[in-house]
Amino acid sequence: MIILMKLGATDAEIQAVADAIRQRGVDPLILPGEDRAAIGIPAALTNDQKMDLEAELGAMSQVSKVTQTSRPYKLASREFHPDDTIVQVGPVTIGAGHFVVMGGPCSIESFDQFDEAARVVKEAGATILRGGAFKPRTSPYAFQGLAEDGLKILKDVGSAYGLVTVTEVMSPDMVSLVSRFADILQIGARSMQNFPLLIEAGKSMKPVFLKRGPSASIDEFLLAAEYVLSQGNPNVMLCERGVMPLDRGYTRNTLDISAVPVLKEHSHLPVIVDPSHGTGVARYVLPMARAALVAGADGVMVEMHPNPKKALSDGSQALTPDQFKSLMQNLQSLQTITTRASG
Amino acid sequence: MIILMKLGATDAEIQAVADAIRQRGVDPLILPGEDRAAIGIPAALTNDQKMDLEAELGAMSQVSKVTQTSRPYKLASREFHPDDTIVQVGPVTIGAGHFVVMGGPCSIESFDQFDEAARVVKEAGATILRGGAFKPRTSPYAFQGLAEDGLKILKDVGSAYGLVTVTEVMSPDMVSLVSRFADILQIGARSMQNFPLLIEAGKSMKPVFLKRGPSASIDEFLLAAEYVLSQGNPNVMLCERGVMPLDRGYTRNTLDISAVPVLKEHSHLPVIVDPSHGTGVARYVLPMARAALVAGADGVMVEMHPNPKKALSDGSQALTPDQFKSLMQNLQSLQTITTRASG
Amino acid sequence: MIILMKLGATDAEIQAVADAIRQRGVDPLILPGEDRAAIGIPAALTNDQKMDLEAELGAMSQVSKVTQTSRPYKLASREFHPDDTIVQVGPVTIGAGHFVVMGGPCSIESFDQFDEAARVVKEAGATILRGGAFKPRTSPYAFQGLAEDGLKILKDVGSAYGLVTVTEVMSPDMVSLVSRFADILQIGARSMQNFPLLIEAGKSMKPVFLKRGPSASIDEFLLAAEYVLSQGNPNVMLCERGVMPLDRGYTRNTLDISAVPVLKEHSHLPVIVDPSHGTGVARYVLPMARAALVAGADGVMVEMHPNPKKALSDGSQALTPDQFKSLMQNLQSLQTITTRASG
Amino acid sequence: MIILMKLGATDAEIQAVADAIRQRGVDPLILPGEDRAAIGIPAALTNDQKMDLEAELGAMSQVSKVTQTSRPYKLASREFHPDDTIVQVGPVTIGAGHFVVMGGPCSIESFDQFDEAARVVKEAGATILRGGAFKPRTSPYAFQGLAEDGLKILKDVGSAYGLVTVTEVMSPDMVSLVSRFADILQIGARSMQNFPLLIEAGKSMKPVFLKRGPSASIDEFLLAAEYVLSQGNPNVMLCERGVMPLDRGYTRNTLDISAVPVLKEHSHLPVIVDPSHGTGVARYVLPMARAALVAGADGVMVEMHPNPKKALSDGSQALTPDQFKSLMQNLQSLQTITTRASG
Repeated sequence: MIILMKLGATDAEIQAVADAIRQRGVDPLILPGEDRAAIGIPAALTNDQKMDLEAELGAMSQVSKVTQTSRPYKLASREFHPDDTIVQVGPVTIGAGHFVVMGGPCSIESFDQFDEAARVVKEAGATILRGGAFKPRTSPYAFQGLAEDGLKILKDVGSAYGLVTVTEVMSPDMVSLVSRFADILQIGARSMQNFPLLIEAGKSMKPVFLKRGPSASIDEFLLAAEYVLSQGNPNVMLCERGVMPLDRGYTRNTLDISAVPVLKEHSHLPVIVDPSHGTGVARYVLPMARAALVAGADGVMVEMHPNPKKALSDGSQALTPDQFKSLMQNLQSLQTITTRASG
Repeated sequence: MIILMKLGATDAEIQAVADAIRQRGVDPLILPGEDRAAIGIPAALTNDQKMDLEAELGAMSQVSKVTQTSRPYKLASREFHPDDTIVQVGPVTIGAGHFVVMGGPCSIESFDQFDEAARVVKEAGATILRGGAFKPRTSPYAFQGLAEDGLKILKDVGSAYGLVTVTEVMSPDMVSLVSRFADILQIGARSMQNFPLLIEAGKSMKPVFLKRGPSASIDEFLLAAEYVLSQGNPNVMLCERGVMPLDRGYTRNTLDISAVPVLKEHSHLPVIVDPSHGTGVARYVLPMARAALVAGADGVMVEMHPNPKKALSDGSQALTPDQFKSLMQNLQSLQTITTRASG
Repeated sequence: MIILMKLGATDAEIQAVADAIRQRGVDPLILPGEDRAAIGIPAALTNDQKMDLEAELGAMSQVSKVTQTSRPYKLASREFHPDDTIVQVGPVTIGAGHFVVMGGPCSIESFDQFDEAARVVKEAGATILRGGAFKPRTSPYAFQGLAEDGLKILKDVGSAYGLVTVTEVMSPDMVSLVSRFADILQIGARSMQNFPLLIEAGKSMKPVFLKRGPSASIDEFLLAAEYVLSQGNPNVMLCERGVMPLDRGYTRNTLDISAVPVLKEHSHLPVIVDPSHGTGVARYVLPMARAALVAGADGVMVEMHPNPKKALSDGSQALTPDQFKSLMQNLQSLQTITTRASG
Repeated sequence: MIILMKLGATDAEIQAVADAIRQRGVDPLILPGEDRAAIGIPAALTNDQKMDLEAELGAMSQVSKVTQTSRPYKLASREFHPDDTIVQVGPVTIGAGHFVVMGGPCSIESFDQFDEAARVVKEAGATILRGGAFKPRTSPYAFQGLAEDGLKILKDVGSAYGLVTVTEVMSPDMVSLVSRFADILQIGARSMQNFPLLIEAGKSMKPVFLKRGPSASIDEFLLAAEYVLSQGNPNVMLCERGVMPLDRGYTRNTLDISAVPVLKEHSHLPVIVDPSHGTGVARYVLPMARAALVAGADGVMVEMHPNPKKALSDGSQALTPDQFKSLMQNLQSLQTITTRASG
């Protein structure tokens, strides 16, 4: 922590800051500064001490700025865990460059619709099947999902095709239910800071697929992961799915591809990109999935519907089965090649 | 709903859109358009029909843009409910110009701290007491609140001073617990789109104090209120508490004062402003509370701590007891005056 | 400047940073740090040295973060100039609590239209007349202003009514022309970082009315003012006119009222608010002008048109003459009162 | 244009809108609507008529929303110009899939520095040489460039190595000067809405390299291009260089890779990506350049400095010569491959 004083702070005011630090058992370092003094804290404080000290400093009128010099997350940080985390879900390996594709419809609408989707996912060579049973919808009047009936379809269809399954869980009291039916728990973008849910998902020890909130900073995103990790659950995957757009007239969000190298540098967790929500437009899914791959992502999540025109949600961003197969082929050849190219 | 075709769409392509509309039992109106055709739907569709139709249109390559012509919320809309909603909580009337002040610390830290805060709130003339028992914190390592012990303190202290109480509830399974101890349920900014929580708060029939998410549009905010209202609970208050800032170097958020006249125009629900979270800086709380009042807000929520230097959370934005009393006096004289001025 | 090292930086790597600092003739202070080292620079560097050093550090792989501890602006800073700047333009005093109203149409459309506008401004008791002769328009197909003919009308009408005039200048080669006709040079929001224009406006020594760019941080805004001030021209007024909105469906921009206390604290320059562009909606102008006043602004700029329905630009945000007179009365009584209230 | 009435608008109020349209010589189409009426205009209005009408409607209290149904740009639109524009600059072909790399330092600092940079660019196989002579800097105290001396170095070095040159022009009065020395005129991000500059660059008929402003929507960006095109100059290249970031702690901007497919769909102009400014971090330049290529960009602009540690500006984002050569090889193999893969 570095405390910058205002210009013209007196010696007594500087000493008041130094004293507040000394009360926590640490010797401050006073830097006379360019036009004003700065005071450094050259030893570890506990989080409680930090919070406490920050409040005390915030109320001192001659303190200009308090800067945290260390990143706020630990367990999610690559500094403390240099090797890539690999999340193993049944036969599927996620992370450390094992590029995976998660495919399927936004919502599970019926057994037949989901069975058909799974068949396409399997044939195309993808290994993870997605589908929503509980749907977070901006409007209370929109289709809200099949709930537990949907979970049963998810489990049955996943087993039938030998696909790993992922579905969203929206509240802490549903974690145990969803855990019985799905292989991976998805925490949606709107739930990224639903802390009771993060804690419950952490306790479940199930693999967690955590989506970045639409206005979440990198620090906030990694701290959300930290909530899960701090429960002793190391199986967290990070998903970039688009941030607040400047212009909603062309895409639903702005897919932040640069978050891929940023997250890979600062965290050891696998990074997946969702170009379907990230753009909201089916015809931009392929170029953005390609971009994610070459930028270093560990996988993509792609919406595909047997008949997008008849989808009960997000039809305009879902690929058709043929488009999905073509995307899989395109990514496979790009992957082979770029592995060679960057080798 | 208005569907705009791409330039050069053929008659057959325009007819395909018209046919999709006719299948829903409605006659389309085709507008030949400036450089291209537009197609209007001059009759009511159900929400399911709309969603369904939108998906079908989204997959037609010659459709350029689909525009919703009506606002997506109904129960929250002033168009359908022209009179101001008044939320009555015990002796306190909120809405329709009855300006209220909600004061108290960010967190309930101990009986003594909270009792002292309540005494100040009461003496200063405010009528609603705030204090967090369950705290949503960005980091899992920060103080998380006293939980149920905090709720008991809230209820005891509120009763002792005859103050109405408000506290945050973070998950649907906690709604019944919190409802037993608090007069008003607060839904925090990060929970604005926690739909299971909104539904449960709606079912509880308790007054709900709903904070706007930091990147929520006005439509998303009013649709979140709609979730509560659609459960039959009419007692919803809207709280503007700052949106994503351009520059975190000076304020924690950008307090959107213009949301006050916008919300008052488009909704009948009471609008409260939180200048404490909205700025994150104690010395900006007074000017922004004044701004909220003259812009037409129905009240403000202000953080005050008996000793901000020792606060366990958000100390840098809390007022001291003296500052709080001074704010109350300032707002009271401004209110008397502006009532006269605008009268 | 504070340099934070990465976790696990070796002593040699820390010494490399220290050496780079010593080469600039300054002794570094090494802070052993919590989990990692930080290095402070306790003496003044020139701007060239800083830039130079920052580039060198940026290329060292074990440097995690370089933090500037001092604010980047000097001449615009209240720290270096504690007293409020007062800009005197003819008989009109701006700053230090002398609340001014600048009124008039977006564009000067004809002598008659502008003469009528000036009459209203004068009768209502405002002292500064605005009107655009050169209009920056997003589309090349929109009305671009009357150019030099408009400037002549501005000067003639301003003189006739004894009003101070303000109009926008869009490029450095037009500064001398516009200076001959107008009392105050307006630099528009889109030109806030048009550095050649800022320099030329600085050299002109005319009062400069500088609008904040729609995505400009406070630092960027004050550095733009610094460009003008650094030419020796102390007559700069800052104008908050709304930043990028989250939701364009209700207001054109988000008027950042909290920028008023922030700018007043960190700078000595007068702060004016433009609620017309800030909201884009005539019926929100009054509440936001009131909010600006009570938050501490030194004035407002308000668009008024003799006949908004016939305006060639921005008609939907212009007040009618009657609305403008009513706004003047409202602000005058609010001002009298709040001066008393805060006294 | 579609006009949506408020709920409860009377027949007389609807007729008032219809009359306003009829006064422009066009027959309105009235759609009875779901809960309210909408009125369509099925024929072309001139831009003046549109603006005029919009102002008139904006002042009618029962008009709820006015929606433009057509995109505001014409010359930049692919709808009006379906084939890709190819910009030919000397021997270099830009657009329609001819992937180009523009390399060089942020600033031209000396003949030797720039000559060395050019040698590296040439050897690595890139064809366009960049370097700034006039530098827009946020602070007036930062290095401002060598001005005309820099232009001479640019021209001499470019000729010596047979490289096409690009450099920024910051004001309209400098267009003719810069045009004499450089092959391509760069309009910087901060100048994207410097309309007098756009017009002058348009008149010059030189190829224009137009950078997107940090908060510019797609429409605003294409309208800026429209300013240049409307002067009769068809040689415009669009450059995505990053938009306002959510989190400045990791990258300088958020590089909007999805703008590539969006711009390629809606415009015929070449699209170049600048991963150097887009991220501000040298080690993210390669992954983002790769992402740009596979997303369909026509080229990248990359900063490279013979000695980034000694750069006078933007050193932390510049590649070293070795990194630049490696990037060129990487992109060349990726390009060969993806051409095959997508073929």
